[in-house]
Amino acid sequence: MARPGCTFPASGADRAQLAMALEVLASPKPGNVDRCHDYADTRLEHFIASALAARPALEAAEGRVAGLGPLIESAVGATACHAGGNTHFGAFILLMPFVYGGGLEGAIEAVRTTTVEDAIAFYRAFALMKVRVAEEDELDVNDPGAADTLRARSMTLYDVMVHSAPRDMVAREWTNGFALCRRASDQLIGDPDPRTAIRRVFLSLLATEPDTFIIKKHGPALADETREWARAVIRGEATLESFDDWCIGRGVNPGSLADITIGAIYLALGRGWAWDS
Amino acid sequence: MARPGCTFPASGADRAQLAMALEVLASPKPGNVDRCHDYADTRLEHFIASALAARPALEAAEGRVAGLGPLIESAVGATACHAGGNTHFGAFILLMPFVYGGGLEGAIEAVRTTTVEDAIAFYRAFALMKVRVAEEDELDVNDPGAADTLRARSMTLYDVMVHSAPRDMVAREWTNGFALCRRASDQLIGDPDPRTAIRRVFLSLLATEPDTFIIKKHGPALADETREWARAVIRGEATLESFDDWCIGRGVNPGSLADITIGAIYLALGRGWAWDS
Repeated sequence: MARPGCTFPASGADRAQLAMALEVLASPKPGNVDRCHDYADTRLEHFIASALAARPALEAAEGRVAGLGPLIESAVGATACHAGGNTHFGAFILLMPFVYGGGLEGAIEAVRTTTVEDAIAFYRAFALMKVRVAEEDELDVNDPGAADTLRARSMTLYDVMVHSAPRDMVAREWTNGFALCRRASDQLIGDPDPRTAIRRVFLSLLATEPDTFIIKKHGPALADETREWARAVIRGEATLESFDDWCIGRGVNPGSLADITIGAIYLALGRGWAWDS
Repeated sequence: MARPGCTFPASGADRAQLAMALEVLASPKPGNVDRCHDYADTRLEHFIASALAARPALEAAEGRVAGLGPLIESAVGATACHAGGNTHFGAFILLMPFVYGGGLEGAIEAVRTTTVEDAIAFYRAFALMKVRVAEEDELDVNDPGAADTLRARSMTLYDVMVHSAPRDMVAREWTNGFALCRRASDQLIGDPDPRTAIRRVFLSLLATEPDTFIIKKHGPALADETREWARAVIRGEATLESFDDWCIGRGVNPGSLADITIGAIYLALGRGWAWDS
């Protein structure tokens, strides 16, 4: 239990950093970086350094000194300080509205009032990290003409997320009131054991939601197979460890569900979730 | 390698947080909390949360808005937000002068100019965490009369460290120009593999320096035995894993050497150590 007079996490920036840290430290998490598993190029240290490096951008979001596009760009730029590649891009897409909006309702309002300039800044951030996109996407982020296209179509960052929502579950959160983050945050708060709740929530998401990052990387069949594995673990027919081995062997890393989980932890912390009890 | 234009770690507060994170994430570290090992009451999450929660106190140190005693008290108070007990008390004794002083020379100057009020604030922090002290110590931190004693003797925080130096290697750093932190920082920078350098530096400290935290907790014989184990590992006569098992079985956690290691990482980062290359 936290001590009386505890002052952390106090701010949205605090909650965001703690959410990023708790998510990556939760273990075992099939396929993703956790305490027991690094990828060759992306290690646990990179995720923690990324959470630390995001501080100025998160404080800027709290102070609303810029729009959501430049804020995400700023966070992605700051966290590119390490050699581990993309660590928290998707997480920032969720955390920035939460921190900027001061809560769920504010976040829903904030995403709806984004501008074309937000969209252009977001595409700059995207290009910086070369985040995996669906190949058929007409708005290819590596296309130098993307800014012109956005301006010509008057697409705001919200419009971009609506455009991406069918193929990207993080973008989809902007369009549906952060539905998955909310559901997973309810589950965190309702879980009797906070010390292991995060990995259970992650597994539950894996069992019900096809990770769109996996779909983009490997196609829908492997995403479905991943869901079947998660269901088998929940039914007690497979172990978490064997699921993890399968994921690692197949290169399956459910990155978008990790982002959703971070959003869920953020919301739960804002509702007083006793992560440490 | 860090990307060009990388801006983290930029400040002393950044370096301090990154040093705390990298130290605890280094693995395997015999006896201490690391990626592969928690204690029942103190887990990896507590150390990372502590590094995050220290941010305001570290920024206050950077801005020199208070003296070293109140700064350490503030950091210890902020990081008591979790249920994991003492995580970074000893580390703050080293980090606060480093951050406040803006470097090694400034730190040496800062500790020498501490006041009696710094000492009193430090004892309040000590009492807050109930850090283990040598039993024969006349200045028992749990003694409510300690403040009166400090005032009567006009003891500054530097004097307190001089008083404690024979039995406490962290206090000793204040009195000898942070000698061990400097030596270990040289070793970090000279190590050909930054990814595993921290655990090698820690093992090297274990082999040469009796950890005063172990001496206070278990007596000098077990501290000597710990050194022998570390030497055997370095000579290739024992594995790091068997040493770790021995430590855990005997309740040996070299906490003061972990603090020294954090100080060393801080200094190395300030000298441009490419932790991520």
